[in-house]
Amino acid sequence: MQVAIVLYPGFTSLDVIGPYEVLGRLPDTEVVFVAERPGLVVNDLKSLSIDVVATLADVTTPDIVLVGGGPGQMEQMSNHALLEWLRTTDRTSSWTTAVCSGSFLLAAAGLLDGRRATTHWAALDQFAQFGVTPSKERVVVDGHYATAAGVSAGIDMALTLSGLIAGDDVAQTVQLIIEYAPEPPYSAGSVDTAPAAVVENAKRVMAG
Amino acid sequence: MQVAIVLYPGFTSLDVIGPYEVLGRLPDTEVVFVAERPGLVVNDLKSLSIDVVATLADVTTPDIVLVGGGPGQMEQMSNHALLEWLRTTDRTSSWTTAVCSGSFLLAAAGLLDGRRATTHWAALDQFAQFGVTPSKERVVVDGHYATAAGVSAGIDMALTLSGLIAGDDVAQTVQLIIEYAPEPPYSAGSVDTAPAAVVENAKRVMAG
Repeated sequence: MQVAIVLYPGFTSLDVIGPYEVLGRLPDTEVVFVAERPGLVVNDLKSLSIDVVATLADVTTPDIVLVGGGPGQMEQMSNHALLEWLRTTDRTSSWTTAVCSGSFLLAAAGLLDGRRATTHWAALDQFAQFGVTPSKERVVVDGHYATAAGVSAGIDMALTLSGLIAGDDVAQTVQLIIEYAPEPPYSAGSVDTAPAAVVENAKRVMAG
Repeated sequence: MQVAIVLYPGFTSLDVIGPYEVLGRLPDTEVVFVAERPGLVVNDLKSLSIDVVATLADVTTPDIVLVGGGPGQMEQMSNHALLEWLRTTDRTSSWTTAVCSGSFLLAAAGLLDGRRATTHWAALDQFAQFGVTPSKERVVVDGHYATAAGVSAGIDMALTLSGLIAGDDVAQTVQLIIEYAPEPPYSAGSVDTAPAAVVENAKRVMAG
């Protein structure tokens, strides 16, 4: 099984590394990071550079496609080469997936028309403009599309997919290897549970 | 504030990227990935390469030191340059921290003598040999040392540290930005809750 994880300048690292750490541990699985051009791809915080060897043209029939989000996603919305690659690979993929604002790229490629999907909480109300039925769930599976809410939700999505692909025993084994028994010290991870002042702070920070 | 994250060949990516995504979002904070030599550092799964510009010699007084784990940690146990760097930076750091088996490197440097600390569940019973008092907690803070259990626990540790460093409001804002309201699809993330067969599977997989 081949998993292709798309990178672009300004990606959010945990969006992709969370699912990578899970899917990369499935049996007989190769993960390849892909980008439009080979070389270093720099993240949103500007302090992490991942070296990408494979271009979109090199990876044509991955079993799983995964697109993360991040501030750089906006620029990619008009990247016709990427959108065309998403449409093409989707024809043969077992799963086409996105984390956080990466789901807007699937939507821009026309892949989520009439589908239920999720994205980062701060962007959820813009989702309907793309013909998507927005869901507040953390992980949404509709057809062969899987989408995750913001950033860290990609871990939950990847474990859900792992169960569907390789069975509950394998998925649970990966969960135990990465000791994923989360204990956040606060309950501020969702707009429904965060204090109102924290929601306002987060919106302000994300607006730059 | 400067955060130095140590990389070495065979690191586990989520060990470092989880905390990076949190600490990198604190106000007025610079994160620098450091390694013994500049260039690409390849992870345990061999499919991810991070480009490192700063060497250990370049970063001498970080405020926070973070060492992740991974199979490559074993080889680093006899890397005297790294262990000496950990001892030296620890003299001036506000926090010296580790995730997963990275805590064995702090122990090998002599920094955890008589301290309570945690590590990946599969290695916890070897910890006492290093003069450490092993704890089954997910995040342990003792003095200016913070340690996290396996892989994904680094996210919880980094949020705990963020609260201690920047206050609850800032830590909660970061938690909401990364939408960290985890919903694992299984409860197999801890040896205490995973089915016995899953624990055996995980041990077998990790033994290679």
